[in-house]
Amino acid sequence: MHTPVTIYPVTGLPEVKPGDNLAELLLRALQAQGLPLEDQDVLVVAQKVVSKAEGNRVPLADIEPSPRARDWAERWERDARMVELVLRESRRIVRMERGLIITETRHGFICANAGIDLSNSGEDEMAVLLPEDSDRSARRLREDIRERCGRDVAVIVADSFGRPWRSGLTQVALGLAGLEPLADLRGEPDVDGRPLHVTIIALADELASAADLVCGKINRVPMGIVRGFTGKRGEGSGQDLLRDADQDLFR
Amino acid sequence: MHTPVTIYPVTGLPEVKPGDNLAELLLRALQAQGLPLEDQDVLVVAQKVVSKAEGNRVPLADIEPSPRARDWAERWERDARMVELVLRESRRIVRMERGLIITETRHGFICANAGIDLSNSGEDEMAVLLPEDSDRSARRLREDIRERCGRDVAVIVADSFGRPWRSGLTQVALGLAGLEPLADLRGEPDVDGRPLHVTIIALADELASAADLVCGKINRVPMGIVRGFTGKRGEGSGQDLLRDADQDLFR
Repeated sequence: MHTPVTIYPVTGLPEVKPGDNLAELLLRALQAQGLPLEDQDVLVVAQKVVSKAEGNRVPLADIEPSPRARDWAERWERDARMVELVLRESRRIVRMERGLIITETRHGFICANAGIDLSNSGEDEMAVLLPEDSDRSARRLREDIRERCGRDVAVIVADSFGRPWRSGLTQVALGLAGLEPLADLRGEPDVDGRPLHVTIIALADELASAADLVCGKINRVPMGIVRGFTGKRGEGSGQDLLRDADQDLFR
Repeated sequence: MHTPVTIYPVTGLPEVKPGDNLAELLLRALQAQGLPLEDQDVLVVAQKVVSKAEGNRVPLADIEPSPRARDWAERWERDARMVELVLRESRRIVRMERGLIITETRHGFICANAGIDLSNSGEDEMAVLLPEDSDRSARRLREDIRERCGRDVAVIVADSFGRPWRSGLTQVALGLAGLEPLADLRGEPDVDGRPLHVTIIALADELASAADLVCGKINRVPMGIVRGFTGKRGEGSGQDLLRDADQDLFR
């Protein structure tokens, strides 16, 4: 753990379109950048380009809002089609007040607007949904990269979520491949030899947040490479980062 | 934003004792490491060493638990003195169930056990409290560094907090100096020229999380240097990261 970690933005990526192969786009961009991948690199990729490549988007014009969505949208001056889509993508409403909709998505993520985004979608009136299965997307991208250049990298599919109590968004890991997302330090002794109590670090979320320092929504930088991270590799899942209902005091 | 960011662990720091000057310890360690500070570096320092240097710790033996703390501790098999101390350091209880105490601390942070820690305290039965004023601590450290080596760095005092809904801790910024903790992208156009909706990024928390990738509780690495971060400098406060009560659906 005593080596530096460096985060590189992947620059010069084109606008991603349905059917694009992200590994190909990535490797081409890295080649132009003079930054070949190395084994143990962690690629952090914004969920939005994953969803775009997978064609996981919906024209808002195709959405027929329910009366409930219409009522709520009118009351809070929102787009009723968007409200409808958020509800369809959700399996449980956590809060729906003051114009904000926080739900548990079909995938189990608790976030605003079911993670659906309109900005940066490349066209007006297109809603970009979260990837169907972010772990699967991460695994595919990892395999594609290995096939094309032989490098064994980890992949994190990331998105920016708000948090209760704290202002602003931070980037978190929705899905991942080739990585253990949690470092469980329970029972390991600290520097005084005393057993640590409950200390589980959400490393995958910290990696996602770190990548956000060089990527970002305004810049056309939806991918970053984290190099030098020595955390445990493995076959973890983004679902490991979701707190079990029976351990969550804030359902 | 198109340059890499590198995070260096500060190695070889001694165990911190009350009265220690952290700037002096830092600069000595960096000198031994061959890593001189540069202007615009962001120093991320664990709150625990700040509190230790400031002598902000309490022998548990000095704490007389109230009947309420005794009852609760007995029910959940906790240390009644610790429960008492957590309640004293708090201005509001958010959740107190299943053996867990989530409160709003005197400083306004919402976290478990009022941020009080026993592990790594250097002695048995010593509770290390959060710094009295983490912004002030960050400002002092920043000034001390400037006086000693002339470098203009930003400072973040960080701690690892749990989150609702997501497993594991991530590091966040309690106090800071020389930095704007939030990047407010509202109204700025995205790549399609469309105004972004509400996009405020909690950069200071992301910086704190990034530093955690090279620091960590087991290793004796309570400080990290983030180099290459091009975010806005300024006179922000850790308090900017606390969501206003009237904008928080999860009080």
